[in-house]
This record gives sequence, structure tokens and C-alpha cells, in this order.
Amino acid sequence: MDKVTLQNVHNQIKPYIHRTPVLTSQLINDMCNANVFFKCENFQKMGAFKMRGAANAILNLNQEQKSRGVVTHSSGNFAQALSLAAKKIGVKAYIIMPENAPQVKKDAVKTYGGIIIECGSNIQSREDEAHRIAIEKGATFIHPSNDDNVIHGQGTAALELLEDYANLDCIFTPVGGGGLLAGTLLAAKYFSKNCKVIAGEPKEADDAYRSLLSGKIEKNETSNTIADGLRTHLGDRNFPIIKADVEKIVCVEEDEIIHAMKLIWERMKIIIEPSSAVAFAALLKNKGTLINKNVGLIISGGNVDLSNLPFNK
Amino acid sequence: MDKVTLQNVHNQIKPYIHRTPVLTSQLINDMCNANVFFKCENFQKMGAFKMRGAANAILNLNQEQKSRGVVTHSSGNFAQALSLAAKKIGVKAYIIMPENAPQVKKDAVKTYGGIIIECGSNIQSREDEAHRIAIEKGATFIHPSNDDNVIHGQGTAALELLEDYANLDCIFTPVGGGGLLAGTLLAAKYFSKNCKVIAGEPKEADDAYRSLLSGKIEKNETSNTIADGLRTHLGDRNFPIIKADVEKIVCVEEDEIIHAMKLIWERMKIIIEPSSAVAFAALLKNKGTLINKNVGLIISGGNVDLSNLPFNK
Repeated sequence: MDKVTLQNVHNQIKPYIHRTPVLTSQLINDMCNANVFFKCENFQKMGAFKMRGAANAILNLNQEQKSRGVVTHSSGNFAQALSLAAKKIGVKAYIIMPENAPQVKKDAVKTYGGIIIECGSNIQSREDEAHRIAIEKGATFIHPSNDDNVIHGQGTAALELLEDYANLDCIFTPVGGGGLLAGTLLAAKYFSKNCKVIAGEPKEADDAYRSLLSGKIEKNETSNTIADGLRTHLGDRNFPIIKADVEKIVCVEEDEIIHAMKLIWERMKIIIEPSSAVAFAALLKNKGTLINKNVGLIISGGNVDLSNLPFNK
Repeated sequence: MDKVTLQNVHNQIKPYIHRTPVLTSQLINDMCNANVFFKCENFQKMGAFKMRGAANAILNLNQEQKSRGVVTHSSGNFAQALSLAAKKIGVKAYIIMPENAPQVKKDAVKTYGGIIIECGSNIQSREDEAHRIAIEKGATFIHPSNDDNVIHGQGTAALELLEDYANLDCIFTPVGGGGLLAGTLLAAKYFSKNCKVIAGEPKEADDAYRSLLSGKIEKNETSNTIADGLRTHLGDRNFPIIKADVEKIVCVEEDEIIHAMKLIWERMKIIIEPSSAVAFAALLKNKGTLINKNVGLIISGGNVDLSNLPFNK
């Protein structure tokens, strides 16, 4: 990977993504004594940055592979992203989802043209089913976060942010599977002078924090977090990038996530999902170190279940 | 009022307001078979278009009047708007609020520097108290909607929308007190060739609809609507403008308001208040007449109580 390659990735996926806006809030700037630039991937197609990596992964297939389709296991944003990117590129997408996944998530995948294959609710069943479809259909398996092309695609959000604001001192992202964080690290490396990257992670699913401490990929011991997009763990493609260059990983409590989410909803009038609030909670927790700095933050997505919000509990 | 005067109003209030963005959604365009341009006053200062009229009303006072302050009765967005505009211009704002108004609304007014004067919860008590403060402090009473300067200020949202999109066939607004609707009618008259203005109103508070039928100002018989900003009635300053030029007033049911609100939240990832959803519900109800048209819609505001949303009931 180098600067030109990442630029080419961006050019390649441009027809399939929105260039999302960057928003600011005077109130939040005053509160943080910093200039905070929110890169709004909640306004991305299908509502999350995952569209970028999914599009890039499919575009990197050859014609033979494209004709056979792609397969992934996800019940979250990547399932929707792969379905929509595949539809736009004219490729079949098989989505392995637990049979007990919420109907609303199944419906979203169907809306975007994905072909749902149900599996049991444990990891083994999910991986077995993905393997079976890959063999049976000849479909290419695309991992939601531990895939070079996915990582590079996700990096284009920070690339755009740095094109718009070249003098950022740091960028905050959430970390779950590690695709967005690794991609952001690559973008900061090639498209900024010295922009540091800081990740926010739920304390309840702190595998990345502990992986950085131990130097090897750790698994989550708990995953009881409202930030449902961040319950996954790092992989061998993104962890080396993260380990090499991330400035730090900030763990945040559940009440800090909800507070951060409410602040953005109430003050900026935009809908962000809990995973995005994790990055903002990390920023708020570290605001003492950010005085007068130019700070980017990737709002990763805006897909929430409006009938199950954390505000009135 | 003429084109130049309205342009001057806009120039005068510019330092005190945001030029709010205009958003579009491919999904909503496809759903309506039209091009819909959402003027996002939910991103306005204090979260609603009311900032425009409040600023204009205060800026039109003379120095003597400014030194004595302004007074209004409102427990909604106009209370916050007058407080904030007054603070920015350096004027005192006395806000008459029922003693049983929600604490969150009182806190918002205090945050913006308004001086709260409590009154009883009936209209007589509210008006008596406003009158008393006007006498005692020499403060100028500013009505939330039935005031020429307020009407002209509110019209600048549509003025900006028409500056950005000159070829709109029509603009939808909500109608409550009538300030936004009357202002939008003036803007359409002076800044478009033949842009019609259509208002949405809750069936549960359909005074404007009935006023248009009878030709005189009618009062609400019920006001049991989720669109709490639209429970007020028209006045003698805005009704003549509305009566002369509005294309039609579309009444919508409560479930249509909630459906429209949910659609915007889920698909556009922006927070709009129920009053704004009334205008969008009216658009959806009339989409058969809008095929291939360029349609503006004023998203009036985004102030909602997150602990009391209609989605999980």
C-alpha cells in the first residue's frame, strides 16, 4: 500500500459512494476547546462507511469471480453494504445470517438485493455455512473487516476528511473488527503530515485495547455493549497496521456512550449509531489533551432501531 | 413589503443565523417521483427557523426600545429563539412561561439567557403577565407569529431555498401560528416565477384549514396533536397573506405525521420535530400531483424530547 494506490482505490469506488459532508458544531467546539470536524458517514449510502470497503472488495474481483458472486457473514451494516455494493456492480451477494437475527435487519438486506442464507446463532455454524456457500456457488468470501481491500476502502473516509481539512492533529474512530481503524491509519500515514489516530472502544468489548497491551490478538471476554457494531475482534490483516501506528485506544463505559450519543442527537440534530458515539465518547474523555487542536472524528454510521433507543430507560 | 425589503431583512439578520443546508434523498425522490429539496432549519441556531423572525423583530427596535428589552409568551421554540437572538444583540428577553411548563424547556430558555417569568397555565394569565411586564419594564411585546417583522424574518428560509433552487414548482411548510407560512408566501411571491406554497396542518389542530374555508380566523376545537408547535392559531397580520396566496392546506392524521417523521429519521439520518413531519406528511399525501416536479420543503426544526419519542409506543 502506498499513497497512489489508496488514491486509486478512492477513484475506483467514487461512483458507488457519496462524498459525505463534514459538519461542525460551535457548542461542541466550545465544550471541547477544540475544532472538531465530524465526517458524516451516517449520510453514506446504506447509512455507514462499510459501503466503501464492500465496494472496493467487489471491484477488485476478476470477471470470473464476479460472475460467481460474493458471500459474507454479518447481521449488521456489512451485510447491507455488501448487498448494495453487489447490486450496483451487478454481482450476487450471499449473506449468512443467524436465523434469530432481527427481522428488520433481514428486511434491510433483502431491500438491497442480498440473498439471505440462514444459519445457527453460533460462530461455528456461521463459518460452516459461509464455507459451504463458497464451495457450492463458487462465491468469493469477503470478510467484513479482516480483508485488505475492505481495509483500503474504509480508509477513504479519512482520505476525504484530510482532503477537506489537511491540518488535522488527530482523527478519532471507533474500533470493532478493526477495518475502519486500520484504513484510517493508512490514510493518515499517506495523506497527512503528522495526524495521529486514536480509537474509542467499549469497555465491555475491549479486545483491541488488550491486544495492543499484549501484542497479540485477544478475544472479547464480554460483549455486552450497546455498540453492537463493535462486538467483533481484530484480525491478522488489520492488527499489524493498528499495532504499528495507532496513538492509543480509549475504553469508554456504556453510560459515556449513551451520553455522547445523546449530545450529538440533541445538539447536532443528526442520527448516529452507538458505535459512532463510542468514538465521540473517547474524544470527550480526552478533551484535556486536545485544547486548540484540529480534531477529526469519523461518524461511522446512523443505522439504529428507533423502537429500541437508550434514552428513555 | 417588496422584494428589496425582504432582501434587506435577510442581509440584516445574516450575522445572527446560519445559512442552513439543503439536503436531498434519492430514496425519497424515488418514492415521490419528484425532486424534493429539504431546507434544513433543524440545523438553524437553537434548532428552528424561529431564530430568523426573532432576530429580525429585535433588530427593528430603536435604541430606546432595545435598552428596555423584549417580552413574549411561549413555551416552545420562539421562547428559545427570542432569548438567543436577544442575547446576541445585547437585549434583555422576558419569557412568560406557564409554571407547569416542562423543566427541559425552562432550562433551554435559561441556557440562552432568557429571563423566565412564570404564569398560570391558561391564556388569560399568560397575556396578563406579558402585559404587566411590558408596562413594568417598558419591554416591547413580540408575538411569536402574528408580527410583521417576525413574518418577514421567517420568510428568509424560503428566500435562501429559492436562491439555491430557483426553479421550484412548489414549497411545503407546516402551519401553526402562520408566521412561517406567511413569510414563505412572501418569499415565493418576490423570489420565484410561479412557485406555489402548500401548507401541512394536523387534522387535530385544523384552524388554518377551516379559516381558509370560512374566510375568517377560526380557533382550534381540538389541539391533541403530537406536533406541539402547531397548536396555535392564525392572526390578523398573517391570515390575509395566507388567504390571498396559499395554494392549499393539507390536513394530516397523527399516524401520518409519525410515519413521515420516522421515514426522515431512518432514511435521512436527521432529527426533525413532529411539526416538520407535518409538512412532509402533506407532501406524501399529495405526491400524485407532484410527479417530476421540483419540490421544496421547509424542515422547520429539530427540537424533540428524546425521552418521549413516538416510535416505541
